[in-house]
Amino acid sequence: MNETNLTLHTDKYQINMMYAHWKQGSMNEKVVFEAYFRKLPFGNGYAVFAGLERMVKYISSLAFGDDEIAFLRTQEEQYEEEFFEELRRFRFTGNLFAMQEGTLVFPNEPLFRIEARVFEAQLIETAMLNFMNYQTLIATKASRIQRVAKGDKLLEFGTRRAQEADAAVWGARATYIAGFHATSNMRAGMMFGIPTSGTHAHAWIQGHDSEVEAFRKYAEVMPDHVTLLVDTYDTLKSGVPNAIIIAKELEQRGKKLKGIRLDSGDLAYLSKRARAMLDEAQLPYVKIVASNDLDENIISELKAQGAKIDIWGVGTQLITAFDQPSLGGVYKLVAREKEEGYVPVIKISGNPEKISNPGIKEVFRIINKQTGMAEADYMSLPDESDFPNGEAIKLVDPLHPHMVKKIESYEAIPLLQPIFKNGKLEYRLPSLEEIRSYHQKQMALFWPEYLRKLNPEMYRINFSPAILELRMKLLKQYQH
Amino acid sequence: MNETNLTLHTDKYQINMMYAHWKQGSMNEKVVFEAYFRKLPFGNGYAVFAGLERMVKYISSLAFGDDEIAFLRTQEEQYEEEFFEELRRFRFTGNLFAMQEGTLVFPNEPLFRIEARVFEAQLIETAMLNFMNYQTLIATKASRIQRVAKGDKLLEFGTRRAQEADAAVWGARATYIAGFHATSNMRAGMMFGIPTSGTHAHAWIQGHDSEVEAFRKYAEVMPDHVTLLVDTYDTLKSGVPNAIIIAKELEQRGKKLKGIRLDSGDLAYLSKRARAMLDEAQLPYVKIVASNDLDENIISELKAQGAKIDIWGVGTQLITAFDQPSLGGVYKLVAREKEEGYVPVIKISGNPEKISNPGIKEVFRIINKQTGMAEADYMSLPDESDFPNGEAIKLVDPLHPHMVKKIESYEAIPLLQPIFKNGKLEYRLPSLEEIRSYHQKQMALFWPEYLRKLNPEMYRINFSPAILELRMKLLKQYQH
Repeated sequence: MNETNLTLHTDKYQINMMYAHWKQGSMNEKVVFEAYFRKLPFGNGYAVFAGLERMVKYISSLAFGDDEIAFLRTQEEQYEEEFFEELRRFRFTGNLFAMQEGTLVFPNEPLFRIEARVFEAQLIETAMLNFMNYQTLIATKASRIQRVAKGDKLLEFGTRRAQEADAAVWGARATYIAGFHATSNMRAGMMFGIPTSGTHAHAWIQGHDSEVEAFRKYAEVMPDHVTLLVDTYDTLKSGVPNAIIIAKELEQRGKKLKGIRLDSGDLAYLSKRARAMLDEAQLPYVKIVASNDLDENIISELKAQGAKIDIWGVGTQLITAFDQPSLGGVYKLVAREKEEGYVPVIKISGNPEKISNPGIKEVFRIINKQTGMAEADYMSLPDESDFPNGEAIKLVDPLHPHMVKKIESYEAIPLLQPIFKNGKLEYRLPSLEEIRSYHQKQMALFWPEYLRKLNPEMYRINFSPAILELRMKLLKQYQH
Repeated sequence: MNETNLTLHTDKYQINMMYAHWKQGSMNEKVVFEAYFRKLPFGNGYAVFAGLERMVKYISSLAFGDDEIAFLRTQEEQYEEEFFEELRRFRFTGNLFAMQEGTLVFPNEPLFRIEARVFEAQLIETAMLNFMNYQTLIATKASRIQRVAKGDKLLEFGTRRAQEADAAVWGARATYIAGFHATSNMRAGMMFGIPTSGTHAHAWIQGHDSEVEAFRKYAEVMPDHVTLLVDTYDTLKSGVPNAIIIAKELEQRGKKLKGIRLDSGDLAYLSKRARAMLDEAQLPYVKIVASNDLDENIISELKAQGAKIDIWGVGTQLITAFDQPSLGGVYKLVAREKEEGYVPVIKISGNPEKISNPGIKEVFRIINKQTGMAEADYMSLPDESDFPNGEAIKLVDPLHPHMVKKIESYEAIPLLQPIFKNGKLEYRLPSLEEIRSYHQKQMALFWPEYLRKLNPEMYRINFSPAILELRMKLLKQYQH
């Protein structure tokens, strides 16, 4: 069995749907699905889209091989041989439009759109959401941390606490997009070219007869990259004094101790004392690295307390998005092809927030030409020829219609990019450095009020009047 | 690049440690590491160990290939060619002892123990913890849900919200160990032989001109396995009445509607009304499946409210362990080989709960022969020849030494099994069905007081007096 084949990384009902459409002769009907989330995670004011590279590789490599067919044969006696023959011919022949990785994204706007045969659109739903949900969640969490770190160096350290191996590497990549500087995971370094970072183990210290001897031996081996873990026995009485001894020995050899790392105890107190001890020993250049269940709130508090920490190692809280470990992204049918062209559809629900927004939607970021800043995102239907037309735009708050924002002079930047066209990849996947730098430019488009970690201003997401009318019309159609 | 090679699924400091030990000539020194967690997740009274199969496959396939070496060459200019030659020869030559999957496990007891060259023991720490932490966490969460479901059928539905692809499949496997009955993930079904389950999509309904027509077409295709999703438009006014029409049509063909599925709205109310409607229509055999952000607390509440739900589909909350998405398992050096044999070591910390328990520890489950029930777990050092010796055992509560439990007649079952011996797999990996059934037998060994979801009794974990003395002795050694 080829474990890298993700074609069956899908829910059983998708295979049932493929079978049902095949059997009913409707497998080639064209449909349009949009993926979006309804609520921002962590009380944040924005999310950071990630996952596109994974999606592109997944779609490109979809194939039902012998193992997959053999397995499906065991699953449902109703599946027929001709169905399996159809699966063997399967490939993605549709269109994918998606946000670029690193884009700031908001609730209820499509992060990607699939236009494809229903046979294809069903199969890929599960995996596409899986990738989007996790990677976007982690990029968003990392972005929150990056905001409070205010330029300090950030290291992703979470592999041992990640939710299995894929989360560790794709999560590390998402943190790098959002501004982290390195990961400890070597495989992530190899797969994506992320800088890697690491010191030594507590066990290295325990494996020697004294701490200073352990430090000395490590410094002999890695003279240019020594960061010493100082908390194995007693940070201030043993670890830091021994690190100072080693720093002085390194100086004799023309080398410099890079840093010390605090991994337990009161990081505010210990870092201040350690900084003072290092400075007193004329070692102002030795950096202090801290780790131990850090997140954006603890880092922010430590900074408020004047902690002397230069580099932050963030693990569990980041790689699992501990305070909200799932982004509830969904994938909803918004239109299907009939003789007259694409016809919008809606999904009603007993939970009002689960009612879908019908119709194929384009998403524009409205940049105020006066300030150069993003004012709102605006969604319209493709046939709304009146937008964008250069005229002033009126943004009505859907919940509070008296709140109208009028923008005279703006640029409307379309956010959804063509990725696959008729099954062909038309998008050049940017390098990770390009994505990271694009993300930084994205952040600069937003006023800090939208970006703060607690109680951010709500960025305006507007549906065009035509979308709102369509929604009301379809809702009424189903309310008897 | 071979993406299935997990050899570099490790932290950079592990490679640094391998290099440092190689360079210092200490790479072949034997060390002993134990992995354990300090605190039970979810306020539960036990955890369910999982991850061993993944660990065994990982250890068996460790290999530094050309890609891994080429990557490492770019990472640190200090690494030398001879070091890479050593890596090319790398294979695991040590011993692994581990709990069997499905075993109930408790804080501070080793879930696995590695005895190996330090060169090997360092490399594998990160991945071994990654597998143990996630899979044990999910098996534990699933076990909590299984307890409140009281025999109802449980379906794992979480893939789209899982933290990437590995979490979806290994998580599904963990839920099956702990008593779930099926997963929606087809790849998990293929990899592990877990039964798969699924209905149809909301989009199937939206893709037809009416709900009843959509139901009818699906029932035509899958007459023996029809479960109808009834909440696309209006559960009670449209979904259930249409499902009843289809059930009657199926009866005409000598078939039976299997179930209806509620996926939104007030599940208590809707299930009671739907049950009444089905019963009134002489369809008592039609099962009600419910889903929508369920967890053990909601299922328990729904049952208390008399909800008429037969089958539970559990997704996000389970597959991410939403309320505590990480088990803080650690891997600590407990002994290293010197001329006189293995010498115990300790790790001190500014956080008292982070101080390690020194020495190689065997773990016994003490089964009271009178009741056949587990009374405590007991850890001893291998050279404690006085245990188990058939005499009565005194279990002293370490925090409250006046609380002594004496057991006259017991069986002491060793929990750590030999898995690898000198690098050779000596353990027959049980089938998933065997693991699942072993887990059920494990559960039956414990009084319900230890198993309840809220405020469980604390199961006794005892260190032998010799371990406690050793700990005090080593602690004093480092306190100046």
